[in-house]
Amino acid sequence: MRILGIDPGLRVTGYGCVEGDPARLVEAGVFRLRADEAAQAGGEAVSARLEELDADLRGAIERLRPEAAAVEAIFAHYKHPATAIAMAHARGVILLNIRRAGLRLVEFKPNAVKKFLTGHGHASKEQMQEAVRSRLGLPARPEPADVADAIAIALCAAWRGVDARTGG
Amino acid sequence: MRILGIDPGLRVTGYGCVEGDPARLVEAGVFRLRADEAAQAGGEAVSARLEELDADLRGAIERLRPEAAAVEAIFAHYKHPATAIAMAHARGVILLNIRRAGLRLVEFKPNAVKKFLTGHGHASKEQMQEAVRSRLGLPARPEPADVADAIAIALCAAWRGVDARTGG
Repeated sequence: MRILGIDPGLRVTGYGCVEGDPARLVEAGVFRLRADEAAQAGGEAVSARLEELDADLRGAIERLRPEAAAVEAIFAHYKHPATAIAMAHARGVILLNIRRAGLRLVEFKPNAVKKFLTGHGHASKEQMQEAVRSRLGLPARPEPADVADAIAIALCAAWRGVDARTGG
Repeated sequence: MRILGIDPGLRVTGYGCVEGDPARLVEAGVFRLRADEAAQAGGEAVSARLEELDADLRGAIERLRPEAAAVEAIFAHYKHPATAIAMAHARGVILLNIRRAGLRLVEFKPNAVKKFLTGHGHASKEQMQEAVRSRLGLPARPEPADVADAIAIALCAAWRGVDARTGG
């Protein structure tokens, strides 16, 4: 099964597509949302970025043809609510695309993904990048960390199966 | 100028369309997102609702043909972060639709809308409903409160002009 992992953000959204058992990496990267904040006030910059994200993600889904998508579950308590609210705008557009493309959706709590990859639920960004590198036998750690996080959740879904909803 | 006010929510999104000076009400209502939460786990229910919202809002924009849209600005501090994060998923899909339709976007802080309608920034739901009823000479208060809030922000945009970004 081909699984697309997505790590939502309003400036950078990471994605990683894996397939097979053991899972191999099909493609990974970031959607960098270029809409110029300086040129546009508040919500107009946000909506321009969401339009870019919508187009970039739709293109990736058409190209990669995954059968399932994996994203982090939202949870009630965030250290940085303002960041979480910005992320949720991107996540809304991502869930809409997953639905429109008819993909299975699987969600995992962030700590569950970290625990699966590294053995503990509070792994650092660097530990996650190294764990993804090691599992996939990559020559270097995926950069930026958003890519590693996206690959990690796809690997988690490949391992747990896409019937596990909101695992952890 | 015809302005569409939108009050985002993941279960109920209010909308209100106004036009002219003094502003008259063109149409108002709610998009009730019907996707059955019991039948679908977590994220699948959310994405089904976002798909409904996307279709309903696109339909309303095509039918009403507004030139501008008005929504509440996001802000950093919320009493209920979990609700704000759910709302932000809907808001992401709403901003995407506003952008796709080429509408001008105007944002106001919630307190600025309340102050404009009632004279004070901490008006109750009932006070907002009554203020909207009174301003538009409606026979009854708009129900539910989401509709009154959507009309209120459209009236605020009609009064302040759509060049006022993130007013308040």
